[in-house]
Amino acid sequence: MTQLEQALKGVITDEMKQAAEREGLAPKDLRDGIAKGEIVLPYNINHNNCQPIAVGKGLSTKVNANIGTSDAYPELDKELKKLETAVSAGAHSVMDLSTGGNIDQARKQIIDNSPVMVGTVPIYQALVDAAKEGQKMVDLSADDMFAAIEKHCKDGADFITVHCGVTKEVIDELRSSGRVMDIVSRGGSFLTAWILHNDKENPLYEQFDRLLDIAKEYDVTLSLGDGLRPGCIEDATDASQIRELIILGGLVKRSREAGVQVMVEGPGHVPLDQIKANMTIEKTLCHNAPFYVLGPIVTDIAPGYDHITSAIGGTIAASSGADFLCYVTPAEHLGLPTLEDVKEGVVASRIAAHAADIIKGVNGAKEWDLAMSKARKDLDWQKQIQLAIDPEKASKMRKAKNDEEQECCTMCGSFCAYKIVSEYLGRTINGSC
Amino acid sequence: MTQLEQALKGVITDEMKQAAEREGLAPKDLRDGIAKGEIVLPYNINHNNCQPIAVGKGLSTKVNANIGTSDAYPELDKELKKLETAVSAGAHSVMDLSTGGNIDQARKQIIDNSPVMVGTVPIYQALVDAAKEGQKMVDLSADDMFAAIEKHCKDGADFITVHCGVTKEVIDELRSSGRVMDIVSRGGSFLTAWILHNDKENPLYEQFDRLLDIAKEYDVTLSLGDGLRPGCIEDATDASQIRELIILGGLVKRSREAGVQVMVEGPGHVPLDQIKANMTIEKTLCHNAPFYVLGPIVTDIAPGYDHITSAIGGTIAASSGADFLCYVTPAEHLGLPTLEDVKEGVVASRIAAHAADIIKGVNGAKEWDLAMSKARKDLDWQKQIQLAIDPEKASKMRKAKNDEEQECCTMCGSFCAYKIVSEYLGRTINGSC
Repeated sequence: MTQLEQALKGVITDEMKQAAEREGLAPKDLRDGIAKGEIVLPYNINHNNCQPIAVGKGLSTKVNANIGTSDAYPELDKELKKLETAVSAGAHSVMDLSTGGNIDQARKQIIDNSPVMVGTVPIYQALVDAAKEGQKMVDLSADDMFAAIEKHCKDGADFITVHCGVTKEVIDELRSSGRVMDIVSRGGSFLTAWILHNDKENPLYEQFDRLLDIAKEYDVTLSLGDGLRPGCIEDATDASQIRELIILGGLVKRSREAGVQVMVEGPGHVPLDQIKANMTIEKTLCHNAPFYVLGPIVTDIAPGYDHITSAIGGTIAASSGADFLCYVTPAEHLGLPTLEDVKEGVVASRIAAHAADIIKGVNGAKEWDLAMSKARKDLDWQKQIQLAIDPEKASKMRKAKNDEEQECCTMCGSFCAYKIVSEYLGRTINGSC
Repeated sequence: MTQLEQALKGVITDEMKQAAEREGLAPKDLRDGIAKGEIVLPYNINHNNCQPIAVGKGLSTKVNANIGTSDAYPELDKELKKLETAVSAGAHSVMDLSTGGNIDQARKQIIDNSPVMVGTVPIYQALVDAAKEGQKMVDLSADDMFAAIEKHCKDGADFITVHCGVTKEVIDELRSSGRVMDIVSRGGSFLTAWILHNDKENPLYEQFDRLLDIAKEYDVTLSLGDGLRPGCIEDATDASQIRELIILGGLVKRSREAGVQVMVEGPGHVPLDQIKANMTIEKTLCHNAPFYVLGPIVTDIAPGYDHITSAIGGTIAASSGADFLCYVTPAEHLGLPTLEDVKEGVVASRIAAHAADIIKGVNGAKEWDLAMSKARKDLDWQKQIQLAIDPEKASKMRKAKNDEEQECCTMCGSFCAYKIVSEYLGRTINGSC
């Protein structure tokens, strides 16, 4: 039985207990959220040694890191190193998007080595396999697609992205939309090409029950992909995007009825003043399913800094309803991320998640800031470093910038505001420096 | 006559013309904004070769970079290099906060070499000079403070931070406030110490007319400092902060009546859900004076990443009324910034300013994103690099990540969504790769 089916029966599973403990919540509340479909607990029965982490309403905002091989960088050991870096930087999830080298092996090893949930996009594998056999991607059969899905689920993927909402109706809308960038989702672009070439409906939509059967067997959470997500802020929140979202909302209902956990993916590129509306409309159209957003980035002009553009959008998104942020690294729009990019991307997304969690009233969020503020007031540098979101970087920078032992810090030197004011207000500073 | 006095007389100065042209605005509209006090044009009559840049309502959001020597880093040439870096990264203003080495020389050279407006904090000089003479800072006289102010104005500072709102009333409020961090503003902490030690009112408040006379002589814009700005999100938007803001609002009126341009400084550390209220209340209490905010940062736990925490807060601030963002570098809370930190700080703040300008409808803002999106769609890498907010970094990262000439980019390799979908939708891609 899936976590959802058990929750609906009133059962609190071990995974629910552990996930609830992590959040400082009563297991009963977590179970009730899962039963309503407002929370998912992606946990494939074949993924051993995975920490149960839940995503959704009332929980801390989660962060995902995308990793995986490509044609240009097929080496698996590099990606395993990225997995390690992402997890130690605090990612709650990784997605294996491998398309280069031995991708079966890559997926299996990433799942084996990941202590956090792993997501995949099975359609990529179907495309790569077709290309290897000299087949045109549009000649793939529905069975080929489902075979890839089944393989990923069997291998232990905790959630899979499936672009079920790219349908003929949506493509018709797109054709006449005047979008600047049409489609930027790889899965979305493939399915569009497939539908147009074969003049048939999307098999992932048409045979959705087949997908549900597979997902249910392994308790894989469906992550309904947004193939029509805007690729630039100019295209945001248009009819193509919202038509797809309406279709996804229908599939959310069908998933829940089948006892399959489900979340919904979202944009992408969204100007500041449309982010909240995007979060609200996902919740209404998709019946409060957890919302998993990529970024969103709030401007298109900052390649090299898209961890920042997405931290801005991610903060607003998370504070207005997004439950799960897919990281964006500084390398986005330029190439595949390095190890350092992976770390920067995870930390930037965690900052966004945390800034939102503070105002969402998530357990422990505000308290973390308060502890840091007290350490600052006490000039307790050791504690400030310990409490930093990235202690390694904070420590390194502090050391690099403060070469004289006796200095509190080089920012103000002897004109330290804390010291000056504490003396005259008669406050005690606990630390020393 | 100051720009304000001329605007009130209906005159459009050359500086107004140039500043208006920069914004794509009619000079008349800029003049009217200056006359109302909703726009300032900081432009000291003694600052030669300075580009006139205006700050305020209806204009693009501006970005300031703080530079300056300290005890630990007294070398002027390094700070001049930072000036160059900040300006070439797109800063609209720099503040010289020098407190180490020969600070008269530092200020003069920074002003001489700066093509953009320069702000200073004269009280720092008074403190350093006192310390040099073995005097206790609380023993400074009012005349000492005004002497420093006069010197900075005469030297060509386009705007000066003056902490006029730190008064006995505000300190009384602070004493019983239970703030975690009391005061983190250096100027604010000094004036608090001075007031408490001498049991006298703040001379910058009590002798405000004297300050106005000096400012008027050189057309220096007063930047009313927020000595009580919160030093952590826990302290944000409290009675101490707002009491000071009310006092600053009164001083805004007096400045305008005297023909002196004036803007108001703001926080600092503010949780996400209080930023908009901070912007609104500044506009009401301070009669729509331009608002110059530091950050604000939305969480305290990210030393090493405060360019990101402030880009998040700065975006929300700028989109809800802030006119001028003071950058925060990755080094904030750890030490003085390096050259690289200065650049990262300026770019992060410019991203925040631009993301807000898009939705504020600032001339050219949206168009920049659209041009980038079209270059992306056309796979025109040269143009993408040209249009990037930091072409140097974008170019470097692109080269580092894409070693094979024939690859469009390593992100998707042969599974490029643009290419796939354009073929089947019958769209033309103009570029090639």
